[in-house]
Amino acid sequence: MTARALSARTDTSDEAVSLWFRLLTCHAVMLGTLRQKLEDKITLARFDLLASLSRSDGQTLAALSRALLVTAGNLTGLVDRAERDGVVERRPDPKDRRLARVWLTKEGRALIKDLLPMHAKHVNELLRGLPAQDRKDLRRLLGGLRDHLSTHATNGTKAQRGTA
Amino acid sequence: MTARALSARTDTSDEAVSLWFRLLTCHAVMLGTLRQKLEDKITLARFDLLASLSRSDGQTLAALSRALLVTAGNLTGLVDRAERDGVVERRPDPKDRRLARVWLTKEGRALIKDLLPMHAKHVNELLRGLPAQDRKDLRRLLGGLRDHLSTHATNGTKAQRGTA
Repeated sequence: MTARALSARTDTSDEAVSLWFRLLTCHAVMLGTLRQKLEDKITLARFDLLASLSRSDGQTLAALSRALLVTAGNLTGLVDRAERDGVVERRPDPKDRRLARVWLTKEGRALIKDLLPMHAKHVNELLRGLPAQDRKDLRRLLGGLRDHLSTHATNGTKAQRGTA
Repeated sequence: MTARALSARTDTSDEAVSLWFRLLTCHAVMLGTLRQKLEDKITLARFDLLASLSRSDGQTLAALSRALLVTAGNLTGLVDRAERDGVVERRPDPKDRRLARVWLTKEGRALIKDLLPMHAKHVNELLRGLPAQDRKDLRRLLGGLRDHLSTHATNGTKAQRGTA
């Protein structure tokens, strides 16, 4: 391999690492800010759970684990605590009683209905200072990356949020 | 406010939420894949700690907490376990002995020197299937978002990874 080919390989690899580093940073800063804005009302993990159920109620634990991109173990604890606090409930599937499905309670539904617009407002506040074209391009390119990862990532956590 | 202005507001907010959702998904899938690739050798959290020290050895806990975007509490446990396993050590600052600094041990330095190229290779494998121009644009736009967030995010976790 020529020096030039080696150098090109290194450049591509450095660019990829830098891209990943930037994505990590943006994720951490946005997540920290959004968590802080919600924290007197709800944890971010529970917010994600209720938001997912508000889009599709009665999911199985397996479906929720995929949708929320959390491990089965973490999800069980999350659902346990949410059930204890009366915002969700597990009920057996009527067709297969071994299969538990998770449903919003009336209280859970009211809570997430209040929080969703507030959360959208916070996300919008964080991003609206970016030039409109950059925001549009960034959304498109992240969609491309998500689609690419859904066929190339190997961790079994497929991108399930592809509808947003 | 006119209906049209309201509608434009909603569209911008939906676009922002969708962008954030995509970023969350890409982050989760990439992180899960990279964690899995490292997992027989090191946890991702310890990898981040050693990688940060390999860029700048002898950091204080406060500096590491900012650099790694983790809370002080989580960092303390992480450094404790890494010290117990002999890859880092705390030593008091010679000029202010109340101030502990964290250093790579010889073993820690050898380990991260082995792992960094492997990690870069994994990141590169995940991203190289994207069109080169998309990768370039995405890196640039994420840099813009990171810079925007470093002045507009309010959680006190400033983007410290801005040099990559």
